[in-house]
Amino acid sequence: MKLHPQATAALKRRLGARVDLSSEGRWAASFDSSKISFLPEAVIRPRAEKDIGSVLELANRHRVSVTVRGRGTTLTGAAAPVQGGWVLDMRRLKRVRIDADAGMAHVDAGATNAAVQTAAAAKGWFYPPDPSSKEYCTIGGNIACNAGGMHGGKYGVTRDFVIAVRGFLPTGEYVEWGTATKKFSAGFNLRDLWIGSEGMLGIVTGAVLKLIPQPAARWTLLTAFADEATALKAARLLFRARVQPAICEFLDRESVLCAERATGKTVFPGQAGRPVILLEFAGGVSEIDDLKFEVLAWAQTQALAFKEAKNREEAEELWAVRRKCSGAMFELGDAKLNEDIVVPMRNYEKFARFLARLKRSSKLPIPTFGHLADGNLHVNIMYHRANASETMAAETAVQKLMETVVALGGAISGEHGIGLAKTPFLRLQHRPAQIKAMQAVKQALDPRGILNPGKMFEVVRIWKYEKMQIKLPWDHK
Amino acid sequence: MKLHPQATAALKRRLGARVDLSSEGRWAASFDSSKISFLPEAVIRPRAEKDIGSVLELANRHRVSVTVRGRGTTLTGAAAPVQGGWVLDMRRLKRVRIDADAGMAHVDAGATNAAVQTAAAAKGWFYPPDPSSKEYCTIGGNIACNAGGMHGGKYGVTRDFVIAVRGFLPTGEYVEWGTATKKFSAGFNLRDLWIGSEGMLGIVTGAVLKLIPQPAARWTLLTAFADEATALKAARLLFRARVQPAICEFLDRESVLCAERATGKTVFPGQAGRPVILLEFAGGVSEIDDLKFEVLAWAQTQALAFKEAKNREEAEELWAVRRKCSGAMFELGDAKLNEDIVVPMRNYEKFARFLARLKRSSKLPIPTFGHLADGNLHVNIMYHRANASETMAAETAVQKLMETVVALGGAISGEHGIGLAKTPFLRLQHRPAQIKAMQAVKQALDPRGILNPGKMFEVVRIWKYEKMQIKLPWDHK
Repeated sequence: MKLHPQATAALKRRLGARVDLSSEGRWAASFDSSKISFLPEAVIRPRAEKDIGSVLELANRHRVSVTVRGRGTTLTGAAAPVQGGWVLDMRRLKRVRIDADAGMAHVDAGATNAAVQTAAAAKGWFYPPDPSSKEYCTIGGNIACNAGGMHGGKYGVTRDFVIAVRGFLPTGEYVEWGTATKKFSAGFNLRDLWIGSEGMLGIVTGAVLKLIPQPAARWTLLTAFADEATALKAARLLFRARVQPAICEFLDRESVLCAERATGKTVFPGQAGRPVILLEFAGGVSEIDDLKFEVLAWAQTQALAFKEAKNREEAEELWAVRRKCSGAMFELGDAKLNEDIVVPMRNYEKFARFLARLKRSSKLPIPTFGHLADGNLHVNIMYHRANASETMAAETAVQKLMETVVALGGAISGEHGIGLAKTPFLRLQHRPAQIKAMQAVKQALDPRGILNPGKMFEVVRIWKYEKMQIKLPWDHK
Repeated sequence: MKLHPQATAALKRRLGARVDLSSEGRWAASFDSSKISFLPEAVIRPRAEKDIGSVLELANRHRVSVTVRGRGTTLTGAAAPVQGGWVLDMRRLKRVRIDADAGMAHVDAGATNAAVQTAAAAKGWFYPPDPSSKEYCTIGGNIACNAGGMHGGKYGVTRDFVIAVRGFLPTGEYVEWGTATKKFSAGFNLRDLWIGSEGMLGIVTGAVLKLIPQPAARWTLLTAFADEATALKAARLLFRARVQPAICEFLDRESVLCAERATGKTVFPGQAGRPVILLEFAGGVSEIDDLKFEVLAWAQTQALAFKEAKNREEAEELWAVRRKCSGAMFELGDAKLNEDIVVPMRNYEKFARFLARLKRSSKLPIPTFGHLADGNLHVNIMYHRANASETMAAETAVQKLMETVVALGGAISGEHGIGLAKTPFLRLQHRPAQIKAMQAVKQALDPRGILNPGKMFEVVRIWKYEKMQIKLPWDHK
């Protein structure tokens, strides 16, 4: 890794205490949730947006890589400075202001997702995107990977709620893409080009987010099914009836068993080990009353068993199950390939059959759960690192999974992004001309290759790297 | 204008009857709703998407401009082949297929907006973007300018409903951006870069569109106000209460007078010449019942007068007024600068005061109407072409309007796009670094400058050009 002592000294002179050269500071910024460490030369914690312009000016002059990070909750390695250089930690820029008339949040990139949700709710508004790390992850990071969450099917993902962004081009100029208005049709749309570009095409310092009215009523229903295919078919029937649950979470048999082992309780009393779908409906009070009737009729005919939450406490208990299943998976193996694939609804049953075959042929546990309203499933391939044949089976399984997802018209990532982890599969998703066009855009906006180099296009098999054995606050309990 | 007889002969040999070299055919493709004619050398009407690949291959080899058009309803000149070359008319590619389970429409670029709406409605689904030319304009054109319509405030614009697009890079390669899934986070987002790029960064041949459930109930209310500022303030209070009308159309005094002259009836009986807001609410039956109560209480305290539509026929009568006002404006002048600006809600009253001053200082009629839920107002500067002082006053007024809109944090175009018409104002909206970044992206994707040259970045004062005196089917009656 090339070092830049002169440039780093110049940076320190320019920005003083905002530049951290300590071993501890650099180590803490050397990895994200992929837990693979690449040490940067310096960590910069801007106090004002213009600091970022200074950093980029020096970086371009001295050809130093710059990797931007929020809290580093991404699982893909996208926030890891794989080529060293400098890391920009955005967390000091964290103002949140709600425009209660227009239903918009004006936020700095370093504000957490939860801070935005809380501020919005205090004014009767709702910000739906909710990655599971929402207490920790920043809006800047959410924009970088176009984060989703459980509400994606009905309400949409981060992209659907970003009205405007501001920040810096890779070459260091300050720019604003869009205005704080719901309509904007003036010039090429670099706002959305930035969203999901994983810190490679620009640095987002702030955004205007769209809010929607906070729903007055919520209603939660847990349903159990005989098997996975039946569950997925039932979900499809619900959507066909144009019913739009706010959340529609599926847990397959293996995920349910994990949750049951973790909690010592059956997920659905009397239906131990059955796949479940957990539904939440949100809307006006009478709207929800109308829906209940229709949804209960559906459950009656489709599900093996169902039970509604009588109140928010009961609902919370049901959601606790969903949150438990992910961490409990580490009883099935000490390594996990967590793939956030997406399958189009028309192919749900085909995918369920494929997954059953994959579990048999790989002889690995592959607990799967996820968001049925948008087809975004988390497929968790569990294995033991020290076991060579399991490791090989896992590598084969992930390749087959990705090939099948693309063949079924789906996506290799729904909400995590590419980073390092998905680079071996990018060319399954995209034709050579598509990759070429993306690289041409990168070259046009970042001619010196400053921002987050080594990601997206270079193939890295992240599972071959040594993973640090550390516990992060947002790791599933 | 440079001619390309050899290239055009090669094109004719390659695509035969799909290439129209007749004077009539070329004339009909020489203009859009801006009614300024630029004759192309050939019109190509592809029968299959691969024809477009052939056209682009020849165009790149021989350096011939290619301008794509649907029905040519755009008011900006974006579909006019200003540098001649070839025009691609997409209207033969017009399949529409509804996926009723997933709530998606799979459409070809040449399908009309109305065809998509009708097909969706037949399956109980709803496609909200509704430009006023919806019976004529194509989805490809809607995507090119990120078209909006009356439903933008609550539901969003074209961009919010495009899940995936396919088509050709300027250099001729076939590409697909996104999959038919609501989540996709794999690679740079060239889908949204294409949306709103006005045929300059790629050719859209088809799209997957998101649909939402068709609302079960609608309710229409007409409200009259003492003056414009009161009306705009009242609207802001409604939004502050987090009430989201599906449509919220404002007509200022001059627009109302136009409609009244056109129809010979008062818009609001007993309140002749008063500004009005026409509201439509959409949702579940009991949801709308709940809303009525709240909205009527608002109207009681805020409006001078109000009346609800008792049924769909009465509602239709009210909407007829809205549709009449635009055409009737030509009694105030034979020329119109129709600007689809956007103002942030917090500045509605400031904008109303500015507009009143502008009307006084310019001594021109400037009837204004538009979509209050998203701040997208149509400001119509009316003048007589033969009158030099009126013409100069109009030019001064449009410049002041654009400067004010940007100063108020708004957008110079909300749904029409830039084309030729808005080119004098693009640099008010965007910093030099932003324009440079857009041009770098254009250069990266279209190195030979084939697609729709002469638009967006070159300043053209469209009002100086001779306008053809023709009536187009979608001209407001």
